[in-house]
Amino acid sequence: MGSIVLNMSVSLDGYSAGPGVAVERPMGEGGERLHEWLFTGDSEVDAQVARELSDSTGAVVVGRRTFDVGVDLWQDTPFPVPCFVLTHEPRERLPMKSAAFTFVTDGAGWALEQARAAAAGKNVLIMGGAHTAQQFLSAGLVDEVQIQLVPVLLGAGVRLFDRLGTQHIELERTRLLASEQVTHLRFRVRK
Amino acid sequence: MGSIVLNMSVSLDGYSAGPGVAVERPMGEGGERLHEWLFTGDSEVDAQVARELSDSTGAVVVGRRTFDVGVDLWQDTPFPVPCFVLTHEPRERLPMKSAAFTFVTDGAGWALEQARAAAAGKNVLIMGGAHTAQQFLSAGLVDEVQIQLVPVLLGAGVRLFDRLGTQHIELERTRLLASEQVTHLRFRVRK
Repeated sequence: MGSIVLNMSVSLDGYSAGPGVAVERPMGEGGERLHEWLFTGDSEVDAQVARELSDSTGAVVVGRRTFDVGVDLWQDTPFPVPCFVLTHEPRERLPMKSAAFTFVTDGAGWALEQARAAAAGKNVLIMGGAHTAQQFLSAGLVDEVQIQLVPVLLGAGVRLFDRLGTQHIELERTRLLASEQVTHLRFRVRK
Repeated sequence: MGSIVLNMSVSLDGYSAGPGVAVERPMGEGGERLHEWLFTGDSEVDAQVARELSDSTGAVVVGRRTFDVGVDLWQDTPFPVPCFVLTHEPRERLPMKSAAFTFVTDGAGWALEQARAAAAGKNVLIMGGAHTAQQFLSAGLVDEVQIQLVPVLLGAGVRLFDRLGTQHIELERTRLLASEQVTHLRFRVRK
């Protein structure tokens, strides 16, 4: 069975988006800095990590807000696999080019069940946003955390690791790769 | 001339201490987790980083609160070099075993001038706490940031990178070392 993997690019001060996320500014103000490595990087390491993430992902979970601000940009599901959207408003399944969006109104656990079934043995990727990631993390539903640490202090925005409660969540680093632009860290959540 | 180096151990969620820092709890509630690597690590990498930090440091700057909660614990200056304490209350120079504490009431810039002179070509270490680090960072007074990234989500405490304003501070990773327990990252602040 695949893993439940949280993957995000974060600044050194822990932001996964700038302030003021909106349709016209899906990464928030200045937040596109966090994804520069994806577009301007010419590193084999960066390419390998991006490729591996794509190859290993069998289904994706996103929050409603990420769907709202992302769908026009992607013009498809974010990865070419089924994508489950956590939301409070029921909505019809939305087929796209490569796969479909399914809207799940009965919580993170159930979204995960459906995503796991759809992933058929591959990993389920928790893609964001931060609030969605936090729900899965604090519920103990994440197996692996993969971050691309971007060497910038943004000073403001949406923090990935926030509102987690005060229990310590221990992790174990399972991979460390570096390109010029980012540091790729992968952790297993100790359970 | 030496560098101005900020060095801290931080959790994956960016805390450099737990909540409720006090004399009887200098790292805050649960915050001692961040220094475990210093005491229980048997890694040559960890030892090398700790040794290098000590060898390269010619003077130390700490905030008043760090002095207050640390001095009984250290029973000396935190490193065997002059230590400058940023404070609002004038106080006599306090000689310890290896060196002295000097209390500086006229701001971060002036504390740095004195520390630089005392360091005689070696580095000045900004040792903490977070608030002091933030003052130096946002004033553009830090040359290098060295962190020991501890694979734990604390969920609460004092964030190292906070209250920095919204200008982006760009860095460049200059070193990456890994032990079982922590990931050692070193950055140069781009100016």
